[in-house]
Amino acid sequence: MESFAGLLKLYQAVRRQTLRLTENLSAEDMVVQSMPDASPSKWHLGHTSWFFEEFVLREHLDDYQSFDESYSHLFNSYYEAVGDRHPRPQRGLLTRPNLSSVLHYRAYVDSYMEKLLGERPDSLRNRIITGLHHEMQHQELLLTDILHLLSFNALSPAVYPSDDAPSSEPEPLGMQAYDGGLVQIGAARKGFSYDCEKPRHQVFLQPFRLAERPVSNREWLEFIAAGGYQQPLLWLSDGWQARQDNDWQAPLYWRQVGGEWHQFGLDGLRPLNFAAPVCHVSYYEADAYARWAGKRLPSEQEWEHAVGAAPVEGNFLEAASWRPGPAIGKAEIGQAYGDVWEWTRSPYMAYPGFKPESGALQEYNGKFMANQFVLRGGSCVTPRRQMRASYRNFFFPHQRWQFSGLRLAEDD
Amino acid sequence: MESFAGLLKLYQAVRRQTLRLTENLSAEDMVVQSMPDASPSKWHLGHTSWFFEEFVLREHLDDYQSFDESYSHLFNSYYEAVGDRHPRPQRGLLTRPNLSSVLHYRAYVDSYMEKLLGERPDSLRNRIITGLHHEMQHQELLLTDILHLLSFNALSPAVYPSDDAPSSEPEPLGMQAYDGGLVQIGAARKGFSYDCEKPRHQVFLQPFRLAERPVSNREWLEFIAAGGYQQPLLWLSDGWQARQDNDWQAPLYWRQVGGEWHQFGLDGLRPLNFAAPVCHVSYYEADAYARWAGKRLPSEQEWEHAVGAAPVEGNFLEAASWRPGPAIGKAEIGQAYGDVWEWTRSPYMAYPGFKPESGALQEYNGKFMANQFVLRGGSCVTPRRQMRASYRNFFFPHQRWQFSGLRLAEDD
Amino acid sequence: MESFAGLLKLYQAVRRQTLRLTENLSAEDMVVQSMPDASPSKWHLGHTSWFFEEFVLREHLDDYQSFDESYSHLFNSYYEAVGDRHPRPQRGLLTRPNLSSVLHYRAYVDSYMEKLLGERPDSLRNRIITGLHHEMQHQELLLTDILHLLSFNALSPAVYPSDDAPSSEPEPLGMQAYDGGLVQIGAARKGFSYDCEKPRHQVFLQPFRLAERPVSNREWLEFIAAGGYQQPLLWLSDGWQARQDNDWQAPLYWRQVGGEWHQFGLDGLRPLNFAAPVCHVSYYEADAYARWAGKRLPSEQEWEHAVGAAPVEGNFLEAASWRPGPAIGKAEIGQAYGDVWEWTRSPYMAYPGFKPESGALQEYNGKFMANQFVLRGGSCVTPRRQMRASYRNFFFPHQRWQFSGLRLAEDD
Amino acid sequence: MESFAGLLKLYQAVRRQTLRLTENLSAEDMVVQSMPDASPSKWHLGHTSWFFEEFVLREHLDDYQSFDESYSHLFNSYYEAVGDRHPRPQRGLLTRPNLSSVLHYRAYVDSYMEKLLGERPDSLRNRIITGLHHEMQHQELLLTDILHLLSFNALSPAVYPSDDAPSSEPEPLGMQAYDGGLVQIGAARKGFSYDCEKPRHQVFLQPFRLAERPVSNREWLEFIAAGGYQQPLLWLSDGWQARQDNDWQAPLYWRQVGGEWHQFGLDGLRPLNFAAPVCHVSYYEADAYARWAGKRLPSEQEWEHAVGAAPVEGNFLEAASWRPGPAIGKAEIGQAYGDVWEWTRSPYMAYPGFKPESGALQEYNGKFMANQFVLRGGSCVTPRRQMRASYRNFFFPHQRWQFSGLRLAEDD
Repeated sequence: MESFAGLLKLYQAVRRQTLRLTENLSAEDMVVQSMPDASPSKWHLGHTSWFFEEFVLREHLDDYQSFDESYSHLFNSYYEAVGDRHPRPQRGLLTRPNLSSVLHYRAYVDSYMEKLLGERPDSLRNRIITGLHHEMQHQELLLTDILHLLSFNALSPAVYPSDDAPSSEPEPLGMQAYDGGLVQIGAARKGFSYDCEKPRHQVFLQPFRLAERPVSNREWLEFIAAGGYQQPLLWLSDGWQARQDNDWQAPLYWRQVGGEWHQFGLDGLRPLNFAAPVCHVSYYEADAYARWAGKRLPSEQEWEHAVGAAPVEGNFLEAASWRPGPAIGKAEIGQAYGDVWEWTRSPYMAYPGFKPESGALQEYNGKFMANQFVLRGGSCVTPRRQMRASYRNFFFPHQRWQFSGLRLAEDD
Repeated sequence: MESFAGLLKLYQAVRRQTLRLTENLSAEDMVVQSMPDASPSKWHLGHTSWFFEEFVLREHLDDYQSFDESYSHLFNSYYEAVGDRHPRPQRGLLTRPNLSSVLHYRAYVDSYMEKLLGERPDSLRNRIITGLHHEMQHQELLLTDILHLLSFNALSPAVYPSDDAPSSEPEPLGMQAYDGGLVQIGAARKGFSYDCEKPRHQVFLQPFRLAERPVSNREWLEFIAAGGYQQPLLWLSDGWQARQDNDWQAPLYWRQVGGEWHQFGLDGLRPLNFAAPVCHVSYYEADAYARWAGKRLPSEQEWEHAVGAAPVEGNFLEAASWRPGPAIGKAEIGQAYGDVWEWTRSPYMAYPGFKPESGALQEYNGKFMANQFVLRGGSCVTPRRQMRASYRNFFFPHQRWQFSGLRLAEDD
Repeated sequence: MESFAGLLKLYQAVRRQTLRLTENLSAEDMVVQSMPDASPSKWHLGHTSWFFEEFVLREHLDDYQSFDESYSHLFNSYYEAVGDRHPRPQRGLLTRPNLSSVLHYRAYVDSYMEKLLGERPDSLRNRIITGLHHEMQHQELLLTDILHLLSFNALSPAVYPSDDAPSSEPEPLGMQAYDGGLVQIGAARKGFSYDCEKPRHQVFLQPFRLAERPVSNREWLEFIAAGGYQQPLLWLSDGWQARQDNDWQAPLYWRQVGGEWHQFGLDGLRPLNFAAPVCHVSYYEADAYARWAGKRLPSEQEWEHAVGAAPVEGNFLEAASWRPGPAIGKAEIGQAYGDVWEWTRSPYMAYPGFKPESGALQEYNGKFMANQFVLRGGSCVTPRRQMRASYRNFFFPHQRWQFSGLRLAEDD
Repeated sequence: MESFAGLLKLYQAVRRQTLRLTENLSAEDMVVQSMPDASPSKWHLGHTSWFFEEFVLREHLDDYQSFDESYSHLFNSYYEAVGDRHPRPQRGLLTRPNLSSVLHYRAYVDSYMEKLLGERPDSLRNRIITGLHHEMQHQELLLTDILHLLSFNALSPAVYPSDDAPSSEPEPLGMQAYDGGLVQIGAARKGFSYDCEKPRHQVFLQPFRLAERPVSNREWLEFIAAGGYQQPLLWLSDGWQARQDNDWQAPLYWRQVGGEWHQFGLDGLRPLNFAAPVCHVSYYEADAYARWAGKRLPSEQEWEHAVGAAPVEGNFLEAASWRPGPAIGKAEIGQAYGDVWEWTRSPYMAYPGFKPESGALQEYNGKFMANQFVLRGGSCVTPRRQMRASYRNFFFPHQRWQFSGLRLAEDD
């Protein structure tokens, strides 16, 4: 548990980091919405401030005057309980309030939050920590969404320059065996976790084996060369439909340039690095690949059980390389964190005994428990503090704009 | 295991029963498709015959001449492995071959099947039994689809007349407690089952309680009266979207007539029977109801564990009342079969160790393992032989045209 | 003006002819709707009877009891003034009333109409004649719609057999010059005409030239060979969009069989007859062709002025060849009637001084005066009595299921 | 004909005026696209410069180096002949090139254009004048599009402040009679005009009467009060469909505030001025209103014949009031220019003898000649130099975001 001084410091660090991520973006970059699933950077800046205003300041600071009453409507994401909201697909129409106003809004909220934190309100500690984790989620989304926006730009801009890592070939893929049996799953009491990671509970696992690293770009090229995108029997029925409707032939940001595969990323368009984990694939593609490889995706429980003990290390936002890279060092189970989110075969559902957060945050996770799949680990744009073995990320199976890859499993 | 004489008798009984179901339908009723999810009755007649032709006769009868080569294309449902097929949403455009030709097709297939059965081919026994279970599934779908078609008809025709059961009030709802622990789930070796019901395996269940009967129409009326369809906090996010897009205000076939709720069914438009299980609700509605009631849906494992031992009794197709009715008699866990399919909270996914059927039938179940939820039990239009504790029916969470209801559960 | 005996005879002839057109159709063929633009044959049978019931019997026969009150809702096409109606895209769901009931409905209406005609009601003469012309329009639509439905059928059924006319080559295309000047346009007082053909009025025409026959299949093949479907500069902007969206590469019912172009028609699938007028092309295609040929489409006034004096001769429904054929004989302006409707460049708008029909039939034509183009002449499935120089047929520029072709024009 | 000194001066004035219009807009305002029909301001700035680069500099300046090759793709609007182009609905994704780059692009093009103009190239005079008229069209579109964008903003910003004109009541509506007969229509040789305004030609008009001013907001309120938006018989069939699909209940930017109608405009949200012409109505609404009023819309020929002689006076962009206002002064035919574009009943089609501009600009007007209706006059955001009696503006009948109103006509 953070001390109050530590909490203040964390608050400031997280808030500053969000702004730092926008340093290379223009006001124009930050206002546009590239699709309904994505949000403008400016909206992320506003929404993360709104979260503190709505769920901390407004509830707990008696004399709090909101910065602007209209922002409550504009920057509410999906909380039905706190009233009406600006339609999600129209977030990109918000040219006003302009960026400067939203930055003032951030500063205004920060000044009150810092004042509040000085008063050491024990009852708010958890709420504030949730707000910071919420903001870290949006740091990742901000990068994910800006990449999507820039991918439509013929200039292929490199907004987050990085060193030109030389391409290399992946290590051979090993599989690690696990006994299964009755195991504990879910967040322990210590440290932050969301409601959906709880309660910690027992499940029974069959023996299984898990790959020592994610599937690489090199291996994905073999899938393509083997006609993986052309063989319906490899695909789920809904997956084949999505593949046909969208004419998928390769991962989302792959492009042929001069006969060679490149990958567009936050650092621009670069030749494909064969050793790096494949990224920006849908659940459907991940599932088809696994079937083609004669394996399967792991369940989230298998992943958590196997990877749980591994140290959290790798790329991550604070030390970002801005794109998944080849393994550094080699753990028993490597690259669990910091490269790509890993699709599991587990639909995102409530754990046995699940109770949603009480009050205003009851909508945070629970209402999304249908039609989505769990991803585990964390990507190169995930903040370090977000990464933990029990974290459950979730997206729809057709979505590809996340930094999503896969790790293979099989029955033992 | 059926003897060969028994198998022939079963074959004839099932095939005859399919035709019996169409006795009150005109050729016009049988050609039309009311939506892409549903199929024309004539297509069901053709497809179930095609199944035997494609997967039994063509593979195993050397000198078999197909009835008409074009039927292979027309009556293939979704088997990518056996070639191209007529588009699903255009099944209703098949005015030709006409009904009479399709009936000849059935007779032709039957004559060869009966010849084949006389030769007692041990290796085909399982395939033929699968074909009969497949046909029984389509018996239910035929009725489900024809109800959907007729529901658009202003004349509210009653094609399957039934006695006018007097409306009554439901018994108070009791909850039965179960200990959980390590339990066996999935089909035992004995008797027919689909690949997705296997392998039988261990899971660990928390203690839980399960309602003694499904939710009734009377209780659903209370949900409506309490504004259940108007309160977004009761709904899953995707569910609320579906409710808004489709303006759901009541179960699918409910209609106000003269200020009183009626329900359209295969026996026409009748006043709502309060004691009968609510029917034709989506997963989203079932889930919202459960939340409103302070409970939840059971997992499919809880359902199977609790209900597994109960005898299969109730309404069913061969003794049909054509609409869900009030409980007859009273078991510990009542009305598990023969009234409504019961939505569970379990996404339809592979069991640990799942292997799809080999060969041509690999596509039967496995490729649908995404985005659908499991329903358990069986409805008033389900053939008696289809009902078993391990049977896993599955549909998308927005679908309502099935005979689908719900049973409540809660943590103990 | 028809005598009453003549009118009765005409009534009986027209009504009988409608039934005759359905002789080769099954009840299944007659219930299905292939797209929202088209209607089932059974619906045409019902609607044309409803027209007499609604606009003649119900208004003018004091003691008239309608055959079935629900038919008023089911068979109303688009008359807002006479109440609510069954949704157009759901006409194909009307398996009930069945065909037999609709035939009884026709007979019932006929018996009252014949009684009424015996009373020689002068005031109704015009309304009844309108009803007969309305029915003749639906005779053509019935054939047009059934062709569209059968075109989806892999069996390529030939429901209206015809002799196998040998393919031939077209005559060279001549252009005929006209002086223009102040000319009279619109229906003369004598004989039947719709409100939109009136009033007869003066327009000023520039000198122009008009082709002596419609564009032939042979010429269309040259357009295809020259890349006409691939060159956006030949097309209207909306036309190019439609061509892209629908991937048009040839007229609607053209098909390659064994490397040779065939055309599906009411008499089945036959090798393309090069001399016959091209048929089933959209306005957009016709316009692009004309631009490619260095010419243009005629205005409807040019067409009427030039063709007006020509005799009405050629194929037509009562002596049907069921598909457009090569010219028989040779007029100065040939094949104006009886082969294909000819797209003109004139949007369908009100003539100066236009007054819609009063009362119930005000909606017959006037409310469609936006976004559609006028076609002139008449096709091989148009009843002979429908053909006249002033007749204005109209369809949307993207529609192709009509028997529509084109005739070229140019400035002199 | 402009002298070269005059042409240079005009060039500079027009180009400067475009920039002046953006003075109150932020880079954020200028990058966003509110719907596919509209374009971002930045795109308008780029496209108008591209027009000079593509059609003047690139063709006629031997040593011209384009500012940036990629702009050719980005800022092409719809010219198929000059190559591929950025998709129209994705214009709002162009956060890069940023505003500053596009402003540099403008300056770069200007410097070369000014050099070229100094060389007095006689052959280019017409092309350059066309480019300036093109730019003036985009000045109007820029304002029209930015109004649409800002209309989604809950803050109702007033980007172009104006004096608060007091609301007043309209003068009684008089109708002026015209004899018709053979009249001349189309642009005279003198002065600039587009290809579609030519050739000047004779048409024959029936006697008619034309309203002395456009329909006012007060009169539109009466239409609403009389249930005009609820009566299908007043509407064209396609119009009623559009009204239902979009739930139109009033003109586009009308809003109820505190029980009073207001209108959002470039100067913000203001109480409705009853005397001002109704603005932002579709053709369908205009047509329905006219029918309700017992009148009709004029043809474009009637409008041109009647209004042609009137002086061009009123509001216009250079002296903008930013919203349609009450009549100033009183002409025989008043407010023909400078308030609202006036829908006519004329589909936008080629005049007899029409020849598209040769070469690169052949696509400027001709390819839009289907499905659109002509508007005449000019609005409060139309540049003064754009206004002339022969000008033919055109839009689709469902579009409402233009400054479009109507003037009534009737047969005499």
